[in-house]
Amino acid sequence: MKADGIISTSTRLCAVIGNPVAHSLSPALHNAAFNALGLDYVYTAFRVEDLKSAISGMRALENFRGLSVTIPHKIEVIDYLDEIDDIDRSIGSINTVINEGGRLCGSGTDGPGALKAILDAGVDPDDATVLMLGAGGASRAIAFTLARSASIGKLVMMDINEPMLKGLAADLAAGTDVTVEAALLGPETIAARVPDADIIINCTPVGMHPKEDASLVPPGLFRRGQVVFDVVYTPLETRLLREAAAKGCIVISGVEMFINQAVLQFEKFTGSEAPVDVMRNVLMERLKG
Amino acid sequence: MKADGIISTSTRLCAVIGNPVAHSLSPALHNAAFNALGLDYVYTAFRVEDLKSAISGMRALENFRGLSVTIPHKIEVIDYLDEIDDIDRSIGSINTVINEGGRLCGSGTDGPGALKAILDAGVDPDDATVLMLGAGGASRAIAFTLARSASIGKLVMMDINEPMLKGLAADLAAGTDVTVEAALLGPETIAARVPDADIIINCTPVGMHPKEDASLVPPGLFRRGQVVFDVVYTPLETRLLREAAAKGCIVISGVEMFINQAVLQFEKFTGSEAPVDVMRNVLMERLKG
Repeated sequence: MKADGIISTSTRLCAVIGNPVAHSLSPALHNAAFNALGLDYVYTAFRVEDLKSAISGMRALENFRGLSVTIPHKIEVIDYLDEIDDIDRSIGSINTVINEGGRLCGSGTDGPGALKAILDAGVDPDDATVLMLGAGGASRAIAFTLARSASIGKLVMMDINEPMLKGLAADLAAGTDVTVEAALLGPETIAARVPDADIIINCTPVGMHPKEDASLVPPGLFRRGQVVFDVVYTPLETRLLREAAAKGCIVISGVEMFINQAVLQFEKFTGSEAPVDVMRNVLMERLKG
Repeated sequence: MKADGIISTSTRLCAVIGNPVAHSLSPALHNAAFNALGLDYVYTAFRVEDLKSAISGMRALENFRGLSVTIPHKIEVIDYLDEIDDIDRSIGSINTVINEGGRLCGSGTDGPGALKAILDAGVDPDDATVLMLGAGGASRAIAFTLARSASIGKLVMMDINEPMLKGLAADLAAGTDVTVEAALLGPETIAARVPDADIIINCTPVGMHPKEDASLVPPGLFRRGQVVFDVVYTPLETRLLREAAAKGCIVISGVEMFINQAVLQFEKFTGSEAPVDVMRNVLMERLKG
């Protein structure tokens, strides 16, 4: 809403849709940012089962400006949009919809949010060998973004699900110029690949609350100066990051990716530069609270 | 939104849809009422052309609790709802939609709002002869409500549009037990019918800003103690009401009907008793401002 806190006929609505959405932090983040800048927007949350109707409804409701799309709708939603970037079509999922006067434009900010987290940490991904653990949705988004938007040297993809792993590796080989290797995730392949990696990114749920004790990488494999990035952000410091930091690695928390994907969404919703610190403070309060 | 002003994943959305909606006073009224009671609701406005998609979108968006429906959608919207009261089907238009877990229920609060305005003014409509000027949408809603929910004596309907007038009179004769007369609106019929009326209700736009100089009833026809009700509320006191008051009539402003239709909507949206004074103050501020 506006600086005076008054919602009017010109107030634009943004919302997160998913199923469930009750635990989403997005309303808190975006509303705090709208308020901080005095923008005439409000952000709510809708649990959605009938995605097609929800999307055509958004198109018909003129002040319904933007959507954050979360599980399980990030893939299917593409079918109902009018426009989507080429890279997002390759990734196969999106998390953001903008209503441009009845024309719905989809895009993903998870990959760009992850890349921004890496660059913000002062890491130069040029020519880097990037080892990615997991070949699911987050991994697809990050891998395509790194391959297309950063001139990395090599992507090494690992997962326990061989068809998914091979599928992503083939898609990356077909859709980007990056050198891709794929290896089935296991103790031996981890031991063989971690030492050579410049950047290690965990895109699996391993280490996530309540199984905080788990980590895919034995700490003895880390070397000083390696970059270790975990997309998990509950807990704020996963075992992976804690052990990597103790070995002198540069660590990047999933919180940074989460903030950045929201920051990039906010900028698409509003056209204004996001008040990053406001959003970070709200998020940290919620995650610690 | 809630007392703490924080919009969360549980915040329920209500909105007005119409075309145009830019001048709607409903967001100001309903948000002030939500805030006064600390209810976790927010109310916005959507200009809508594709009504069918907007309605199925509402059904699919779980926290989308209620709609105020305004021109030009009050008739067509009935086609897209799951449930509608019998009287509203007779009236042929509604102004309120409630989303009961994906089941959309339509109802009208214009007629009940008008009846409440009459009762709130201390007027007893029992056995009254009611003269209604105009046979359009507002007139249909009020006439059916008076015929069904108040034991009035007789309804005299007048309009310059003969097919519309005869249509409404026939619908009232078929759908209610009230005695109905219809007369083509003109100076002679006004002169003949006004003196016998206990309650005169103007449902035409005559007298509305910017044509504030107009009135359908020559002031010499009024008699002390008659009730004169104008659904027009811009200006707050129409020429009709000003002249009627000067002749000792009991006058009821369209503002009362407008507030009451919103009050009844609010109670359907929230299940809570509306803070009527808060809503009245906001409306008066806007109308005077």
